[in-house]
Amino acid sequence: MRNLTMLMDYYELTMANGYFVKGFRDKIVTFDMFYRKNPDNGGFVVSAGLEQLIDYIENMHFSEEDIAYLRGKGEFAEEFLLYLANFRFTGTIEALPEGTICYPNTPIVTVTAPVIEAQLVETMLLLTINFASLIATKASRICRAAGDMDAIVMEFGARRAHSYDAAVLGARAAYIGGVAATATVLCDEQYGVPAIGTMAHSWVQFFDTEYDAFRAYAEVYPDNCTLLIDTYDILKSGAVNAIRVAKEVLQPMGKRLKGVRIDSGDLAYFSKKLRKMLDAEGLQDCKIVVSNSVDEYLIRSLQKQGACIDSYGVGERMITSKSDPVFGGVYKLVAVKDADGAFVPKIKISENIEKITNPGRKKLWRVYSRETGYGLADLISLYDEEFDASKPIPYVDPSKPWKKLQFENVEIKQMQRLIFKDGKLVYEKPDLKDIRAYVQHQLNHQVWEEEQRFENPHTHYVDLSEKLYQTKKEMLEQFDSK
Amino acid sequence: MRNLTMLMDYYELTMANGYFVKGFRDKIVTFDMFYRKNPDNGGFVVSAGLEQLIDYIENMHFSEEDIAYLRGKGEFAEEFLLYLANFRFTGTIEALPEGTICYPNTPIVTVTAPVIEAQLVETMLLLTINFASLIATKASRICRAAGDMDAIVMEFGARRAHSYDAAVLGARAAYIGGVAATATVLCDEQYGVPAIGTMAHSWVQFFDTEYDAFRAYAEVYPDNCTLLIDTYDILKSGAVNAIRVAKEVLQPMGKRLKGVRIDSGDLAYFSKKLRKMLDAEGLQDCKIVVSNSVDEYLIRSLQKQGACIDSYGVGERMITSKSDPVFGGVYKLVAVKDADGAFVPKIKISENIEKITNPGRKKLWRVYSRETGYGLADLISLYDEEFDASKPIPYVDPSKPWKKLQFENVEIKQMQRLIFKDGKLVYEKPDLKDIRAYVQHQLNHQVWEEEQRFENPHTHYVDLSEKLYQTKKEMLEQFDSK
Repeated sequence: MRNLTMLMDYYELTMANGYFVKGFRDKIVTFDMFYRKNPDNGGFVVSAGLEQLIDYIENMHFSEEDIAYLRGKGEFAEEFLLYLANFRFTGTIEALPEGTICYPNTPIVTVTAPVIEAQLVETMLLLTINFASLIATKASRICRAAGDMDAIVMEFGARRAHSYDAAVLGARAAYIGGVAATATVLCDEQYGVPAIGTMAHSWVQFFDTEYDAFRAYAEVYPDNCTLLIDTYDILKSGAVNAIRVAKEVLQPMGKRLKGVRIDSGDLAYFSKKLRKMLDAEGLQDCKIVVSNSVDEYLIRSLQKQGACIDSYGVGERMITSKSDPVFGGVYKLVAVKDADGAFVPKIKISENIEKITNPGRKKLWRVYSRETGYGLADLISLYDEEFDASKPIPYVDPSKPWKKLQFENVEIKQMQRLIFKDGKLVYEKPDLKDIRAYVQHQLNHQVWEEEQRFENPHTHYVDLSEKLYQTKKEMLEQFDSK
Repeated sequence: MRNLTMLMDYYELTMANGYFVKGFRDKIVTFDMFYRKNPDNGGFVVSAGLEQLIDYIENMHFSEEDIAYLRGKGEFAEEFLLYLANFRFTGTIEALPEGTICYPNTPIVTVTAPVIEAQLVETMLLLTINFASLIATKASRICRAAGDMDAIVMEFGARRAHSYDAAVLGARAAYIGGVAATATVLCDEQYGVPAIGTMAHSWVQFFDTEYDAFRAYAEVYPDNCTLLIDTYDILKSGAVNAIRVAKEVLQPMGKRLKGVRIDSGDLAYFSKKLRKMLDAEGLQDCKIVVSNSVDEYLIRSLQKQGACIDSYGVGERMITSKSDPVFGGVYKLVAVKDADGAFVPKIKISENIEKITNPGRKKLWRVYSRETGYGLADLISLYDEEFDASKPIPYVDPSKPWKKLQFENVEIKQMQRLIFKDGKLVYEKPDLKDIRAYVQHQLNHQVWEEEQRFENPHTHYVDLSEKLYQTKKEMLEQFDSK
């Protein structure tokens, strides 16, 4: 396995060395990883990346070369370097299972560990969860758009991905978000996401004529023949040659033309024309695949125009989340354990109000309607709080704190699972297919339609327990009075 | 070294197997990699990624597990799998040296190889060059903006990068584009890009007071003390405590406060206020570093407002090229070698005119003014053409083909270098620092200011030789008459 331990921000090492030198190495702290804004102004995020985070934590260690490199920087104490040479993660990690639908300002991953350990995992934790959640969320949007007409979405983005891991782990995240398959072979080999593909324009250009190219392909792949028909002229050349191959090459073998693909031009216009041409020739079962600059907005537009499309190959706009390519997850210190074993809450104030953090070691709950099963709100509490759903549960809406509110007739579920306990992995990583099914289950049965729409989706309520609200209020008042 | 051979699109394997089964495995072809549009509507691209492409090509091989996986797909001939098991790249690659300023529709990388080999490198070639060029280009824009006020740019983006390679190779590309340093430790260890960093908000929160946090840091790092001052209140708390530490902790040691950093709030307002506060306390040498949502546009805006900023930490907007996150490089078949050894040109027509390719095996030249040394235009010719700069050089501007044009009083230089010759690496990879210096040299001495500006930059001329223009014209006429 690749050792990514040194993939950290340099300030993590200067701080770690500082904590070490100042004698704080055994001080236990809690950090929350959360995000502030849903990508594309959507209603939620599909969390992803936990499996990779687990692999990283389990494998975390500094090699001799790493230590030698750090020594060369001339900033670190020898005792600290010796400590790093024997480093392993001994802390506790709680996290949302991969595929959990989640919301702004709620903890996705929570790390409770000696301060140096908790600090050194910052970059990899953010990097891993941020990217995977970004792509899973974008893929979910695109698949929801296509799903309205029961079209299948395939991930075609490797060549425009932001380097190698983005291609492979991006395809994995897209699968969690709902795509049916990927073009990226390595993602199939490593993660079992079905790899598919047929031909590029180069295949068509290589042969003397387009017909020769199609015929050769049909002869080699009679059972899986999808032809790319826009190398020269979609209707006058590509479609004509494809139909000819269906009749002259495939039909005599008892085989059918599986599909045609167009990768340029007016997809609405050509798909409708093509459907008519194919149907008129008895090729009603031949699928039409399109693949040029597709995203959820183009799919919606194509649907409105009555395009005849059976499946979408989605490339750059999904693998880069082009319309909103930054997932701004952050990792904030929320508590420090004092000598008595109590977790003292910590807060970050900011000129930007939305950057003020929720202090303290916490728990995240989701509140479901007992009637419908749909999620009504998230509730964040202090860590030691428990709730009894058989009685009304009081809560505070932080935007209207003066209101007396309570949940009634609900189910309440704690959302984070224990992943590492004192450095030991205590969580069984679910199968990728099960993660994907979990996303679908939530979207079908627990997340309101109103949260799933693209335009002005309903803002999911994220409420605070009375105790947490009181803690935060007191800390803010205290800072203000200084 | 990591084996990324299987990081390819599945269609490359279906086509390769098709070529193999149909008896074309020894057929030699030429592919060009080029792009069509400058990111951010800029005037050019800083090409990057060649070193990683070379490493990939040299290391390309299919393991036993890869072959077993492919066999399991049930689509590939056993002879083809045997061929893959013994695969190595035997072709010829020509490419622009890393750091070359380049323009739309000019070949960055050209592969001439047996068709299967040329096809199988497609995804990795694109992925590698596309991402690195995207980030080098974006970094160059941001550094050019900051350079106007001689501020230094540092790369801080790992946590928002699109997975692991993007963080490390993105920082490398950003260095080529001009950043002075990175926060990403692994990029320093692997590529020698200087890693820097001091503290996060968590350091400040960890201590009982901000002053305690600053003092502890100054004691551990008296020679390299930059304090993050926006955890609670920039002016009332952060700046006051930083100044106190400069006087009470550092001054008695004979040390100076190196810098203060702000990561939120109104950067123009606070930087001006801070400068006055620091200067009034005799801390004129204390640098002001800012780091919130910085890109070339924000830097320009801060300059206009008279902000007092010595250096920028640039994160998500550089490492994702947020304003334009897709670099659309493509890889197109341009020629097939016939039985007589001649390269027969191939073309891709398209409904989208800008997608029509330049056919044939070609050479790329850059034409410089003999007087000023600046680049006047690029010239694409057929592969066997040579030019004598002592005489006028006729050319065709493809947008005004009726004009009789010629270059006079120019130098002309062939731009691609031979990288692999018949599978053997014949190119010495330059040092990263030299690549970075090469970019600076071109920007300072060869690329017009008018091409470097952000708003409506001058469009660099990309002209065709008369022979290439004639070849393309004849092929288009031939298709049209069909």
